[in-house]
Amino acid sequence: MPEKVNYYMCLHQEGIASIPRLIDKAYSNNYNVVATSINANMLPMDPFETDPTYPATVLGAVEWNSKVIFVLSDVDVDSPNAKLREYSKTLLLRDVTWAEHLQNVGSVMVKLRGPNNNQLAEIMKTKSKGHWFVQVPITNPELATFEHRKDATEEEVMRAEEDDTWHWWNNLRFAVDHYPKVKVVIVLNDSDRPNSETVRRWLGEPIEAIVIPSSLFVRNRTNYCVLHREWQEIIGHFISVRANIIISANPSDNALSQYSDYMKKLINDHCDTHELNSYENMLEIPLQPLSENLDSYTYEVFEADPVKYKLYQDAVQQALLDRVADTDAAKGKVTVVMLLGGGRGPLARAIFNAAELSERKVRLYIIEKNSSAIRTLSNMVKTLWPNKDVHIFSKDMRDFSPPELADILVSELLGSFGDNELSPECLDGALKLLKPDGLSIPYKSTSYINPIMSAILHQNVCQQVPSVSAFNYGYVSLLKNIYHIDEPQALFEFCHPNREEIVDNTRNAKLEFKAIKDCVVHGVGGYFDTHLYKDITLSINPLTHTPGMFSWFPMFFPTQPKTVKKDDVITIEFWRCVDKQQVWYEWKVNDWEHHNVKGIGYNMKL
Amino acid sequence: MPEKVNYYMCLHQEGIASIPRLIDKAYSNNYNVVATSINANMLPMDPFETDPTYPATVLGAVEWNSKVIFVLSDVDVDSPNAKLREYSKTLLLRDVTWAEHLQNVGSVMVKLRGPNNNQLAEIMKTKSKGHWFVQVPITNPELATFEHRKDATEEEVMRAEEDDTWHWWNNLRFAVDHYPKVKVVIVLNDSDRPNSETVRRWLGEPIEAIVIPSSLFVRNRTNYCVLHREWQEIIGHFISVRANIIISANPSDNALSQYSDYMKKLINDHCDTHELNSYENMLEIPLQPLSENLDSYTYEVFEADPVKYKLYQDAVQQALLDRVADTDAAKGKVTVVMLLGGGRGPLARAIFNAAELSERKVRLYIIEKNSSAIRTLSNMVKTLWPNKDVHIFSKDMRDFSPPELADILVSELLGSFGDNELSPECLDGALKLLKPDGLSIPYKSTSYINPIMSAILHQNVCQQVPSVSAFNYGYVSLLKNIYHIDEPQALFEFCHPNREEIVDNTRNAKLEFKAIKDCVVHGVGGYFDTHLYKDITLSINPLTHTPGMFSWFPMFFPTQPKTVKKDDVITIEFWRCVDKQQVWYEWKVNDWEHHNVKGIGYNMKL
Repeated sequence: MPEKVNYYMCLHQEGIASIPRLIDKAYSNNYNVVATSINANMLPMDPFETDPTYPATVLGAVEWNSKVIFVLSDVDVDSPNAKLREYSKTLLLRDVTWAEHLQNVGSVMVKLRGPNNNQLAEIMKTKSKGHWFVQVPITNPELATFEHRKDATEEEVMRAEEDDTWHWWNNLRFAVDHYPKVKVVIVLNDSDRPNSETVRRWLGEPIEAIVIPSSLFVRNRTNYCVLHREWQEIIGHFISVRANIIISANPSDNALSQYSDYMKKLINDHCDTHELNSYENMLEIPLQPLSENLDSYTYEVFEADPVKYKLYQDAVQQALLDRVADTDAAKGKVTVVMLLGGGRGPLARAIFNAAELSERKVRLYIIEKNSSAIRTLSNMVKTLWPNKDVHIFSKDMRDFSPPELADILVSELLGSFGDNELSPECLDGALKLLKPDGLSIPYKSTSYINPIMSAILHQNVCQQVPSVSAFNYGYVSLLKNIYHIDEPQALFEFCHPNREEIVDNTRNAKLEFKAIKDCVVHGVGGYFDTHLYKDITLSINPLTHTPGMFSWFPMFFPTQPKTVKKDDVITIEFWRCVDKQQVWYEWKVNDWEHHNVKGIGYNMKL
Repeated sequence: MPEKVNYYMCLHQEGIASIPRLIDKAYSNNYNVVATSINANMLPMDPFETDPTYPATVLGAVEWNSKVIFVLSDVDVDSPNAKLREYSKTLLLRDVTWAEHLQNVGSVMVKLRGPNNNQLAEIMKTKSKGHWFVQVPITNPELATFEHRKDATEEEVMRAEEDDTWHWWNNLRFAVDHYPKVKVVIVLNDSDRPNSETVRRWLGEPIEAIVIPSSLFVRNRTNYCVLHREWQEIIGHFISVRANIIISANPSDNALSQYSDYMKKLINDHCDTHELNSYENMLEIPLQPLSENLDSYTYEVFEADPVKYKLYQDAVQQALLDRVADTDAAKGKVTVVMLLGGGRGPLARAIFNAAELSERKVRLYIIEKNSSAIRTLSNMVKTLWPNKDVHIFSKDMRDFSPPELADILVSELLGSFGDNELSPECLDGALKLLKPDGLSIPYKSTSYINPIMSAILHQNVCQQVPSVSAFNYGYVSLLKNIYHIDEPQALFEFCHPNREEIVDNTRNAKLEFKAIKDCVVHGVGGYFDTHLYKDITLSINPLTHTPGMFSWFPMFFPTQPKTVKKDDVITIEFWRCVDKQQVWYEWKVNDWEHHNVKGIGYNMKL
């Protein structure tokens, strides 16, 4: 069921005198969370007191959990200096103990200082409560310093450019073994603006929030704090993947409410508020409408698609006009249309509309194997279409013996990957229903794939039960937190009617992609498009997606995560395999694991 | 976190013309759910139509799921007549298919007709979506008929009395293997009122709702529909275990809103709206404060207990008065009090209050091993008690070397089962802190047990991961849907200070209970009471529970479910075992399984 998207707006300040007062200040300026050092010193310092912090009782447990992000001490637990390393570890562990005491589900934030974070990773893995928010500068802070340094050599600049902060995070992510409680907080920086590909790559990471330093704001002509258009766009990308906002400001800053108001406007502009947002990044096992009957809820969701049935109607209308000349129409020529899989009637309605608009007579046979859908269809015939030439058959189309042959077969048997609901097998089985010169709507479908990075999808796959076979499944998923490593390419194609002597619906293909940037491959995105009639198409390929159509989410075929380098070639091989009982896909990226061998995971029952 | 309790009020009517209209009528009379036959015939019947029901589209999927309970055809799938049995099965399966089509999370209701329901159980196990509500008459309907039949022999009456409808349900429950989606709906009957033990036993079952026929209502002097006091009490019992209400009435009934208004009042009177109701029937792994530090949230919950600390204060006050005569007090005699486990200070506060009220001087040593709690305590000393004679030690009491010996040890180390947080071991370890004539508050604790029936607790145990070892755990649980098969009896006792030569904290005892009625044993309830000082006690034994005290929920030690007969003796044996690393309980009911052998499940680390 759809849920409202809730962002939090966090005020980060250091050197504050009282956490409760910081919360009051934040709330009165329209923030609902605060971030501050866990060691805020809120008492007059006793010189003999070794540990002069505030007591747990300044806030209640619910407030500690819901209103405070603790910034841990900025110490270097991975220092090459053993003494400093041990000292840092003691401090950090003390902070973690105190944080776990105050919060049983809260969050701590820690800053990455460079590419080596193995000790930090070990500490992270021991903390069992709440989340770790890992602050990563969006670009290497060293780069910014070169602007002011005339003496930097070209080599130094190059090295700093290569010391990409994404790698700091990537090393940590592997060191904590993709632990889902570790999330990224991207820190923006007013001295360096990242390019768009750098931003896009972060969208495939488990982004918790972005830190916006108040120095990023400028005053406009009316003296209001605003952001440059370029920053608006960058931040908009993060908002679109549900990143929360942390404003970092000095305690003396008096424009706090201007920042939060401005950010709320920006969230409104960039937040994607479609009805299905609760499905984002969720993994669903694909439907198998051939072996399992759909329920009323599923029909209702599909019927609500505002675009799909109109395009079907256009296709049928055009086909009727092309097939029956006006003179024949005037003589009352009847076109026999067979609807294969009538569901609760939306396509039948589209066909009747098309007949009316084209002024062509149709006789409609509706074949439907779901006896529950038949109940609703029968009622529709009786109440909505009492005078139409319509006939319902409660049958599997593969076993149906028609009273006459069809001019046009109409079906909507396509899944998110095109053929994955066994449309080829069903339509081949229905070929006997069609006149020799008859046609099928749709007449072609094509699947598409590309390599994608998505830490969240990977985590969700790992959380499937049992996790062992989870990597042998293809999932339907509303892809949200992803990075397209390269553009989708066409994989398999099926045409209908297929009148070949020997019909072979097995397929095999190998496609090559290229990484635009260093990144991690987490799996393969799957999409399709289909031609209904002539150039009337439906598509969920991201490059050509039919606007406004939501009947299909993409597919995701997982792999084990592997880091690839910029310009690396990524080879993806896919197989569509068929035996007497079932159809299944196998897939393999580069020379990595061969997934779903013999259909041991995801397979479609015939 | 606490949640509001939501009951639904359902209107059950048969022979209705339209489900949407029934919903409208129900809503306008303050019901929010309807129950009606799934085969409601809402269309003019076509003589050639074999299946003349309503289409799925008369309601949306959300409404089908949330507003309608489908009453399945009242057919006998367990009939001895093979033909009738097969016919009934076909009808019922058709109903189930239609229900699953309309509802992907909804509920169907079916009526039990007698003790044999194996075929029905098989059908239930095949349905994967939503719940089964099983209607069971609260007493055998045959009994009621004897009132009007003069010819019934004594033997007939006895047989009917023995044919207890609880057994109808109990047979089914075992046949569906305790499937948690199968719930009981108790049907009340105006011709026979159940006795209180019959009602109480149902409270241990997974009660979904009760059906109240409108005929149960009578008109009062002001012509309002009300229930007899006896029925109010019976229904009140069901409301107290969160049973929902189904009013069954004729379509022509025009007092519908009177019934629902009356029932809402009754719910208000009997619904137990404490803050902790979201914990009801939940299983929690007991805390281990000795091996794991408590967090601030846990301290906060315990500190909020309105009764416990007042009783501690009374106990300390009385002890101070008894120990120090007025004349000695006048001379400024100091009583040394050691608080073993200071937490965030509530007992220290109680001790200072006691000192003030008794006008006795105390020197307080607070020993606390949780370094995070010490932070808060240190702050309290500085800000709240700057002029008190108080000293904090960040230590395990077993390793503490005191600057002087104590007159009084005060501790709150007891768990739900008394000694299960290792109070005996801790207090034995602290004996060296106490003067030879010193005393301990508390000075005695006793555990109690009894056999209980609770289908919901059993289901919750089965859902623990991994379920294999779940039956070797003792759980802390706010027992709600339970039936006390017999009253609790004392099990183990510990006294402090324990100055015996050889201290032995192992225990073994075997207690005998007797079943008041036929029922199922699902496990053993565990409780404790403790004597703080003289006759000042705390108790969670249901027979003597300290009013208003919520710091401890009872314990539940599961067994595999077994049916026992009225007057059967139920023997429960418990062991408290100790080795160098840990303490654990083992338990065994009758000659059934021996649980938690060698502490492989629940054990307390020393």
